[in-house]
Amino acid sequence: MTKGKFIVIEGLEGAGKTTARDTVVKALRDSGIQNIVFTREPGGTPLAEKLRELVKQGVGDEVLTDKAELLMMYTSRVQLVENVIKPALSRGDWVVGDRHDLSSQAYQGGGRGIDNQLMTTLRDTVLGDFHPDLTLYLDIPPEAGLKRARARGELDRIEKESLAFFERTRQRYVELAQADPTIVTIDASQPLEKVTASIQTAMHHWLESRK
Amino acid sequence: MTKGKFIVIEGLEGAGKTTARDTVVKALRDSGIQNIVFTREPGGTPLAEKLRELVKQGVGDEVLTDKAELLMMYTSRVQLVENVIKPALSRGDWVVGDRHDLSSQAYQGGGRGIDNQLMTTLRDTVLGDFHPDLTLYLDIPPEAGLKRARARGELDRIEKESLAFFERTRQRYVELAQADPTIVTIDASQPLEKVTASIQTAMHHWLESRK
Repeated sequence: MTKGKFIVIEGLEGAGKTTARDTVVKALRDSGIQNIVFTREPGGTPLAEKLRELVKQGVGDEVLTDKAELLMMYTSRVQLVENVIKPALSRGDWVVGDRHDLSSQAYQGGGRGIDNQLMTTLRDTVLGDFHPDLTLYLDIPPEAGLKRARARGELDRIEKESLAFFERTRQRYVELAQADPTIVTIDASQPLEKVTASIQTAMHHWLESRK
Repeated sequence: MTKGKFIVIEGLEGAGKTTARDTVVKALRDSGIQNIVFTREPGGTPLAEKLRELVKQGVGDEVLTDKAELLMMYTSRVQLVENVIKPALSRGDWVVGDRHDLSSQAYQGGGRGIDNQLMTTLRDTVLGDFHPDLTLYLDIPPEAGLKRARARGELDRIEKESLAFFERTRQRYVELAQADPTIVTIDASQPLEKVTASIQTAMHHWLESRK
């Protein structure tokens, strides 16, 4: 394995993405991979971080339209992919991402119900055939995830959405995960040790399959 | 005439859009139209003004990709159209805009050479059948316009583009203006009094045709 790979961790708020990331990184280091770049979306470049702030907090009481939210996610993504992720992979570094395109498909496509033609055109023109090598989708019922997210403190603009919004988002996640062999679904409603064990097993199998 | 209309002023940097706006507004007021809302793009809402700043000045030395620039223009536009322009027109106000979608078609489509499918999908899904009632396109050779823009002071990120970029932008403006009967081309390379007279004549004819 000499070329860098792109691994993404996905899931609803409170699904345990940060803990999962630590488990993924440990598995990579244990297999001898040292140069790992971390990304988060939206964000990860100076411009993208400014957009993250705008999309998460809004500006005053201005209504942020669903389409504007979607376009800001893709603005952030194209900057991150072109300026950070692709250069890292070219150098041979590995990239571990907290969210990527699947989040837009799930939240803006599923949750917001934005029409498929716009979703598809944006993905195809912004990303082309760029795609994570492996995605770990942490599946959790929205109630459980939101409970954890709330316990962490103040919720942002999107985290304040209705339960029905997160149900639609989860449903789209599940559908897309089933259809894509590069996405591994992890049952994140299990006790933490079991979630961690599931991720370790998934990483072990994936790393072995690539030898 | 009881319903508001949307009039847009378009053209390269230094084409004379601000002076043209004053002429348009005087023509509207002379014909009895009092409630006029002014917009500019990118910008015109709190969020859109923040995006205007980001797209015009950039963030540090981060490279702003052509696609990110385009997406930020449409983010700004969807916010302005939904939150400002459509509500104004619904109230019966008139809207006079400094730039609108034709700028993206010319600058990002023509100047940057962004592929037509993305341009078309963005316009169709963001704007639907929303379209200015009248556009005055101020046509000027880029050299002349840039000379005036430079005389006004510091150039922004886009104004610093190459002459070839502005030639492509102008060419796309001219092509689109020829194909769209709602766009009136004004020769903005004439002396100022003649430009103003041309705009007065165009406004007079258009307002008469609508009686």
